[in-house]
Amino acid sequence: MERIPVRTAGGDYEVYVGRDILSSVLPSLLRRLAPRRVAVVSHPEIIELHGDGLRDILREAVPGEENTAFFIFPAGEEEKNLGTLEMGYRALLHADVTREDVLLAFGGGVVGDLAGFLAATYMRGVRYLQVPTTLMAMVDSSIGGKVGVDLPEGKNLVGAFHQPRLVVTDPTTLRTLPERELRAGLVEMLKHGLLKADYFTWYEEHLPELLACDEEVLTEGIATSCRIKAAVVLADEKERGGPRTLLNLGHTVGHALENVAGYGVWRHGEAVGIGLIVAGRLSRRLGFLAAEELQRLEKAVVATLGPYLPRLTRDQLDPLVAALFRDKKTLGGRLRFVLLRRLGEAFVAEGIEPALVRAELEGLLEAEVTP
Amino acid sequence: MERIPVRTAGGDYEVYVGRDILSSVLPSLLRRLAPRRVAVVSHPEIIELHGDGLRDILREAVPGEENTAFFIFPAGEEEKNLGTLEMGYRALLHADVTREDVLLAFGGGVVGDLAGFLAATYMRGVRYLQVPTTLMAMVDSSIGGKVGVDLPEGKNLVGAFHQPRLVVTDPTTLRTLPERELRAGLVEMLKHGLLKADYFTWYEEHLPELLACDEEVLTEGIATSCRIKAAVVLADEKERGGPRTLLNLGHTVGHALENVAGYGVWRHGEAVGIGLIVAGRLSRRLGFLAAEELQRLEKAVVATLGPYLPRLTRDQLDPLVAALFRDKKTLGGRLRFVLLRRLGEAFVAEGIEPALVRAELEGLLEAEVTP
Repeated sequence: MERIPVRTAGGDYEVYVGRDILSSVLPSLLRRLAPRRVAVVSHPEIIELHGDGLRDILREAVPGEENTAFFIFPAGEEEKNLGTLEMGYRALLHADVTREDVLLAFGGGVVGDLAGFLAATYMRGVRYLQVPTTLMAMVDSSIGGKVGVDLPEGKNLVGAFHQPRLVVTDPTTLRTLPERELRAGLVEMLKHGLLKADYFTWYEEHLPELLACDEEVLTEGIATSCRIKAAVVLADEKERGGPRTLLNLGHTVGHALENVAGYGVWRHGEAVGIGLIVAGRLSRRLGFLAAEELQRLEKAVVATLGPYLPRLTRDQLDPLVAALFRDKKTLGGRLRFVLLRRLGEAFVAEGIEPALVRAELEGLLEAEVTP
Repeated sequence: MERIPVRTAGGDYEVYVGRDILSSVLPSLLRRLAPRRVAVVSHPEIIELHGDGLRDILREAVPGEENTAFFIFPAGEEEKNLGTLEMGYRALLHADVTREDVLLAFGGGVVGDLAGFLAATYMRGVRYLQVPTTLMAMVDSSIGGKVGVDLPEGKNLVGAFHQPRLVVTDPTTLRTLPERELRAGLVEMLKHGLLKADYFTWYEEHLPELLACDEEVLTEGIATSCRIKAAVVLADEKERGGPRTLLNLGHTVGHALENVAGYGVWRHGEAVGIGLIVAGRLSRRLGFLAAEELQRLEKAVVATLGPYLPRLTRDQLDPLVAALFRDKKTLGGRLRFVLLRRLGEAFVAEGIEPALVRAELEGLLEAEVTP
């Protein structure tokens, strides 16, 4: 088991990564927080798969059946909204959850974001734990305290920074993860590789094992990603123009794609995959990235997503460019974009012309993405 | 003009209190924050009364008509909900407000609480200013960063701690405040008196001038209340069992009354007035407060609220006791209550029997409240 410390102004905590640690480690960690009640936020599929195991863990940690509450909502980005949030508040209230109690996010990124925002704002803030069950949540969204919900106009437009007390990541839960979710999650791992050169090489080399869900290799990758994320959060907790901004690599276009296609049509990681290719091509066009590096980047994205690589249609172009401006990362009419100087080194470019982005998106229509 | 510093983990800021400072001081203070856009959150009545003046101030501070946005919603506690919040998010979005911009809360407690929560959660947090226009907001809610909205089940059940960058309090805006709002605001001033003995005596002596809206005396009282509030916030920003809890004197019963009567039926201050009497009588019954002190307390509340003192009905008793348990200050079945040891000294009592509270509420049905 690895223990990765995360230091933030909102509190220090640890990310535990290891196989089979849910049943062995979580009960004692939960007991340390001494809640009267634990409210689990999750979705039906994961409860069906892992609910019994979780109930055993909770029975050990907080005795008394009435001391466990569940708020279960349908999975999917399209449910991460203010309406679900309201149901969540009222579910917590009716389960008599108080400020002394603890929320436990048990699921993927959508569950973690919504549960975290519930925790940030229910009675002005309660403690919460992240127990991610998708690769995307394990390597990215469960760490760093970014929580929130979407508006119809764009993703995560309502949110807060609220750090969890603990993150417990058990890669054995990935055994039941659908292939499509695994591939989408690997895109975030790949993105971390683009921020750290050695890791990109590791990723290229180990991609076959990762795609085969080799738990040992997955655990190694997850831990590396968690360390990268923890370092970035330490340096720039609230994304005030520091390194945390670099984690948005591929995300401006990614969010726009999700928004235009309709939430739930493409997975977040799939949209970010296209975003990474656009960022790579823009970097190349502006003279930063070498041709051979761009080729490696595109090859990695294509191999990662396989049949799930999104295909754009021409009628999506205009809405896509419009959606870019609704993203939080725009700044008064100009676009702020994370670009690559080389594989493993990203930087923030200000004032990117929307026409340039449009041209790259158009390029994706006509040619095969594969190099 | 008085400048009262407020120090918090969420940032230090100042409360400016003085007559006619809106036009003289606010423009330069606003310029210092260098927003591209200022989004005013307010309600129709206050905009009708003071909107022109505010527009002049904004024109001076952020040139360009398009750089001022307005989100105006009907005043009243019954509008402080998730639905109004959603309209607010979308109004900000459509006005192209970004994370670099500033929100300005211009109104009473409802406007300040909702604007502050918008600021806490729009794009994960933007800066905001409090410009309170009611006495209640001036002496209490504009300072300390408690922001949020209500659920049908209770007040402020959704919220955050998000400190303003600045509070600008100009008592001349009280000239247009309805008498009922003035009286309700004075209850919070009276409450501060119950936390600090000298101030209670000052309040008793100056009540006639306060009720007559004497601006000099009001300004003195407001500044004193702001200093008390700032000191409490410094000691216990997030209300973790320290002195900030004491500011809830009268509020557990007050919130229950508001909830049972229906938001907007009684003013917050009116409900808190009854809450202060109940807290006083409970304190007396438990052997803390002297009979003569309770008499002074009740006399002060009755004189402050005059014709607006709420009258309870018998059929409200059961719902009231039930509502007490939905308040954030309850702790698993028992009630946490702020009581008085003497006038000017409050303390937190744990495990108060609901039957005791019920008896005091029942007492209010039968006898006149006046001593």
